[in-house]
Amino acid sequence: MAPHCSPRFLASDNTSGICPEALDYLLEANACDDLAYGNDSWTQRATDRFRSLFDYDCDVFFVFNGTAANSLTLAAMGQSYHSVICHELAHIETDECGGPEFFSNGAKLLTSAGRHGKLNAEGIEQLVTRRSDIHYPKPRIVSITQATEVGTVYDREELLAIRTVADKYDLRVHMDGARFANACASLEATPAELTWQVGVDALCFSGTKNGLPMGEAVVFFNRELAEDFDYRCKQAGQLASKMRFIAAPWLGLLETGAWLSNASHANAMARYLADGLRGLPGAELMFPTQANSVFVQLPPPVLAQLRERGWTFYTFIGAGGARFVCAWNTTVELLDTLLADIRQALDAS
Amino acid sequence: MAPHCSPRFLASDNTSGICPEALDYLLEANACDDLAYGNDSWTQRATDRFRSLFDYDCDVFFVFNGTAANSLTLAAMGQSYHSVICHELAHIETDECGGPEFFSNGAKLLTSAGRHGKLNAEGIEQLVTRRSDIHYPKPRIVSITQATEVGTVYDREELLAIRTVADKYDLRVHMDGARFANACASLEATPAELTWQVGVDALCFSGTKNGLPMGEAVVFFNRELAEDFDYRCKQAGQLASKMRFIAAPWLGLLETGAWLSNASHANAMARYLADGLRGLPGAELMFPTQANSVFVQLPPPVLAQLRERGWTFYTFIGAGGARFVCAWNTTVELLDTLLADIRQALDAS
Amino acid sequence: MAPHCSPRFLASDNTSGICPEALDYLLEANACDDLAYGNDSWTQRATDRFRSLFDYDCDVFFVFNGTAANSLTLAAMGQSYHSVICHELAHIETDECGGPEFFSNGAKLLTSAGRHGKLNAEGIEQLVTRRSDIHYPKPRIVSITQATEVGTVYDREELLAIRTVADKYDLRVHMDGARFANACASLEATPAELTWQVGVDALCFSGTKNGLPMGEAVVFFNRELAEDFDYRCKQAGQLASKMRFIAAPWLGLLETGAWLSNASHANAMARYLADGLRGLPGAELMFPTQANSVFVQLPPPVLAQLRERGWTFYTFIGAGGARFVCAWNTTVELLDTLLADIRQALDAS
Amino acid sequence: MAPHCSPRFLASDNTSGICPEALDYLLEANACDDLAYGNDSWTQRATDRFRSLFDYDCDVFFVFNGTAANSLTLAAMGQSYHSVICHELAHIETDECGGPEFFSNGAKLLTSAGRHGKLNAEGIEQLVTRRSDIHYPKPRIVSITQATEVGTVYDREELLAIRTVADKYDLRVHMDGARFANACASLEATPAELTWQVGVDALCFSGTKNGLPMGEAVVFFNRELAEDFDYRCKQAGQLASKMRFIAAPWLGLLETGAWLSNASHANAMARYLADGLRGLPGAELMFPTQANSVFVQLPPPVLAQLRERGWTFYTFIGAGGARFVCAWNTTVELLDTLLADIRQALDAS
Repeated sequence: MAPHCSPRFLASDNTSGICPEALDYLLEANACDDLAYGNDSWTQRATDRFRSLFDYDCDVFFVFNGTAANSLTLAAMGQSYHSVICHELAHIETDECGGPEFFSNGAKLLTSAGRHGKLNAEGIEQLVTRRSDIHYPKPRIVSITQATEVGTVYDREELLAIRTVADKYDLRVHMDGARFANACASLEATPAELTWQVGVDALCFSGTKNGLPMGEAVVFFNRELAEDFDYRCKQAGQLASKMRFIAAPWLGLLETGAWLSNASHANAMARYLADGLRGLPGAELMFPTQANSVFVQLPPPVLAQLRERGWTFYTFIGAGGARFVCAWNTTVELLDTLLADIRQALDAS
Repeated sequence: MAPHCSPRFLASDNTSGICPEALDYLLEANACDDLAYGNDSWTQRATDRFRSLFDYDCDVFFVFNGTAANSLTLAAMGQSYHSVICHELAHIETDECGGPEFFSNGAKLLTSAGRHGKLNAEGIEQLVTRRSDIHYPKPRIVSITQATEVGTVYDREELLAIRTVADKYDLRVHMDGARFANACASLEATPAELTWQVGVDALCFSGTKNGLPMGEAVVFFNRELAEDFDYRCKQAGQLASKMRFIAAPWLGLLETGAWLSNASHANAMARYLADGLRGLPGAELMFPTQANSVFVQLPPPVLAQLRERGWTFYTFIGAGGARFVCAWNTTVELLDTLLADIRQALDAS
Repeated sequence: MAPHCSPRFLASDNTSGICPEALDYLLEANACDDLAYGNDSWTQRATDRFRSLFDYDCDVFFVFNGTAANSLTLAAMGQSYHSVICHELAHIETDECGGPEFFSNGAKLLTSAGRHGKLNAEGIEQLVTRRSDIHYPKPRIVSITQATEVGTVYDREELLAIRTVADKYDLRVHMDGARFANACASLEATPAELTWQVGVDALCFSGTKNGLPMGEAVVFFNRELAEDFDYRCKQAGQLASKMRFIAAPWLGLLETGAWLSNASHANAMARYLADGLRGLPGAELMFPTQANSVFVQLPPPVLAQLRERGWTFYTFIGAGGARFVCAWNTTVELLDTLLADIRQALDAS
Repeated sequence: MAPHCSPRFLASDNTSGICPEALDYLLEANACDDLAYGNDSWTQRATDRFRSLFDYDCDVFFVFNGTAANSLTLAAMGQSYHSVICHELAHIETDECGGPEFFSNGAKLLTSAGRHGKLNAEGIEQLVTRRSDIHYPKPRIVSITQATEVGTVYDREELLAIRTVADKYDLRVHMDGARFANACASLEATPAELTWQVGVDALCFSGTKNGLPMGEAVVFFNRELAEDFDYRCKQAGQLASKMRFIAAPWLGLLETGAWLSNASHANAMARYLADGLRGLPGAELMFPTQANSVFVQLPPPVLAQLRERGWTFYTFIGAGGARFVCAWNTTVELLDTLLADIRQALDAS
């Protein structure tokens, strides 16, 4: 992008635009009229491509955004009087404005702490066994975020341990894959190895954070849970009439491999930033940098000065903790500028 | 479009793609990163442009599709125990898979017949006064579709008559503007003349059917009803993180005037088709052609033959009635081919 | 009841009080503290008694009223994007203020006409086959009211015909038994013969209209549908903490046989009234009197005069049609007075 | 009650039956038929009596149980995208199986700790100011439980402090009065002094725990919030057709003063038990005994032995903590037996 066009946006990976591969396919899909509501050839090709990517005969649906993907999927996995076990920092708990409760018509989220933003078997078991009376919503789903909200990842052993406790208590496993591609890249694992092979029932796979204009894929490995899911999407305002404009860009990501290369680049940029911060006295990394987010403790005056210089970032999590998120188009130059500004601000403080 | 690329799609105006004006703005919006969740400059410019288009200080929100636009707006206009009065052919009654009931958590639709697919004051009054007991959901909203599902339009007198009965019974007026632009073009009326000037409280203005890839605008003239509507959209999975990719194409439609010229063209094509059909013995037009849809009675064998030749169209409404919908990119050539095929099929039958 | 205490209430069978058999058990249940939330002995005995009454190992739950019984049961039989087929006069359609839509979070009711207030196979098939696209809520349940809203009953052949079409289209059968006891009495059939033996999946059996202060029983013959129904009731505010005060009166009805004798008496009173009306020129019975309701066409001035004399009755259904409902405690004396007043008013008009 | 009938039930005040005053009125209401759905004279008299009790022209509604009372009232006080601030031990958070989320269609509860089970201004302010973005449900309601879940009460100063912070942030104040009568008795305050005079917008006043078979009163002091609440109750399955059987017992409690004397007796019994426990080495009271509940720390073997001897009590709250609840009919004899058993068990351990 032109230099005048490198805004200091590191608040989220959704400030980036459409990656070239996705755009090419979108434009191609616009060359011709096509059938509506997913009856077009692009949607067919894209869903088939997901099946080959996962090496599994899964059911695939496209929705507009992550709130809907997670909320509708959770609604399909339980009933209103069931509860969903998730980490206290999970997006569905902290940042969906009650979306899961709305779509499920009242399902309650039960939260657990856990090191590095990750649920673990003990925490899950504790919530499931806390009570067994009818006044407490019946635990039915475990929701894990891969990569997590704090930029860490669950490895296969951790995922298998969660599946084991889920089986013990008849729980279904939902994966919020807002940054699933980043996890695959980080763990050098295939999509299959991180989902159905470790007992994930349903995955919400984000395209928006990975270079699409909008659009997420809901992938059901437990196909019973997908029964009539198309009706659920339609009723809930998530059936795109011109669906090819979601499906074609997805196909672009998948056919070109950009889904993974975009994520690898974003992860590499985050590691670069973390390495740079590691050398700065006064800057303290909060979590291992395993995906595309970096969390760092900086003195409040430093944060203030960065904001003055036009840097955007969130400080929701942890007092004084700043989150910087890298994306498919983040550049070394931008990070060097950031690191220089941080160094300067630290020296001044 | 290239000749090889003129599919015989006349089933709906959502088989067409993105019009050039919308695409130009979308690409421009992609030149640079920008803030998420509507905090970008494109969203600001687009909403301001709506205010000038309507010559009114209205509240404007963008959502992904029409199901959500209508359902969320109705939910904001009433409570779960209220009822919505609409025509028996209204899209919210016949084609949303219970969307309005879902988003409102149970509001009931009360339907009325009415000539040419239009509600009228008598029909509304009959439903409101039928009962007044607590076992019958309290009427609170009148929903009118402009242009209607059968390709007709409400003129200003008809709209004012509805507003009068609405005032009499403390009802709010919702307008489903899936084809609002076509109505403006047909009536040669300004957006203001067909909305707040005739007492419309909220309008769902469709962009998708008018040349966008996706995205609708919800316009509140009664701003009290818009209170916290942004939270409602977020919770319901209708807040786009990269909102500029909905807002920028909208701005393209508005700044270039394509919103109206696209509609005018579609209307003209529908009239052209209707004129052609009028000359065919055995073909009987079902409704006045006032917007971009043509409904015609044709013998079943004729319909069958058209389908064999690859024409797509719906026959939901009226036995044997076929609906042909024209769009911003429908060509005279395509319609001539259709007319020739119909003539031939009629002769053969 | 004392003469001063024979109000001219024939508007509904819910103006009557608690029958002696129910009251005796209620008082006995009050002699001693007992466990809450249905863990008491009365609830156990009552549910066992239902199982013997139906000669079936069914699941039984108690809720407070009919709106909740029907709505929660329908919610358990389908999902929000499903539709419920019922008669256009069904209580769930006309008198629940959107209750079924609320509890199911949006399920749509599809209505059919039908002679004598009864659904039939043709009407059901017509609704199921009308459309098969995703924009139309998927039919999943058939709801039949036994006895119907107009005082008629479905015989076993009619019920079997409905089950046959239900099987053909994978529909579940719900029975609104607001006056189920009256149907059993009318048809001289056992509860088993009118439910699971003819393929009813779930029955809402009313106690309130049959002599209880309040309380309905939900009986699942298709036990899969009852999974976690206790949680559903709790969440929806239908779990009575002192449940024995619903269960004990129910046990009183069942152990003493009052459930049937109350209904038989009410039916007999309705027949007595109908016979009396049959002899009156100017009074025209609207439906066969097969349960405890009588619908009669009377001139408006006659209706006005009856109201002046303190008679309460509804005229919702059919222009000029008056509904008189008899209950467990309706007396011949009261009906003779009514008949005399009607005769007098007719002569005067 | 007869000796054979003194079960060792101290788990809750809902194991007790109907108090004599309530029963007398119930029986009187059964002497005669009456109009349904609250159009009877008993309902009118009872609601008027509430207005005089509160010395305020409030709106009063009757519902079946506490889950519904609290959930429907919260639903009327906010929208689905709003949040409710309550104590982490509040019944609506811990024991309603997601009822508030269900009735509100998704409102999220935000919990705060607080000494003695009580919310305080600081805790409320912390939750309100934590975030102000659209991804976090907008705080709209503060819900306080009076008396609290741990048997303490809010005095007028504490209530006024909460009202002050509520005004600062435009929050509405809901009071869960499951044990409101016990709070009035404990504080020797009038109902007015503990509700509208300290800014409570709506109160859910429990009758069930106070000697009724079932039935709660919802009292709106902020009458705007009561708009169409009757429709809300009807749709949600909370309109009793024979409402006089809820209203008349309530009238009995109010006219005889039993509502207060029952509560005073229960409180006195709790104090008697607490005094007895205070003298026992090994037994440690957990909270001040200000209402009708006693929470005591006892060694697990002691708890086990008490259960063996047939005592029922809950140990949800606090490891090893046992809750004993006294009711209108709890006797000194029963408590002496309990104390003796505890002493014996302590000595043995």
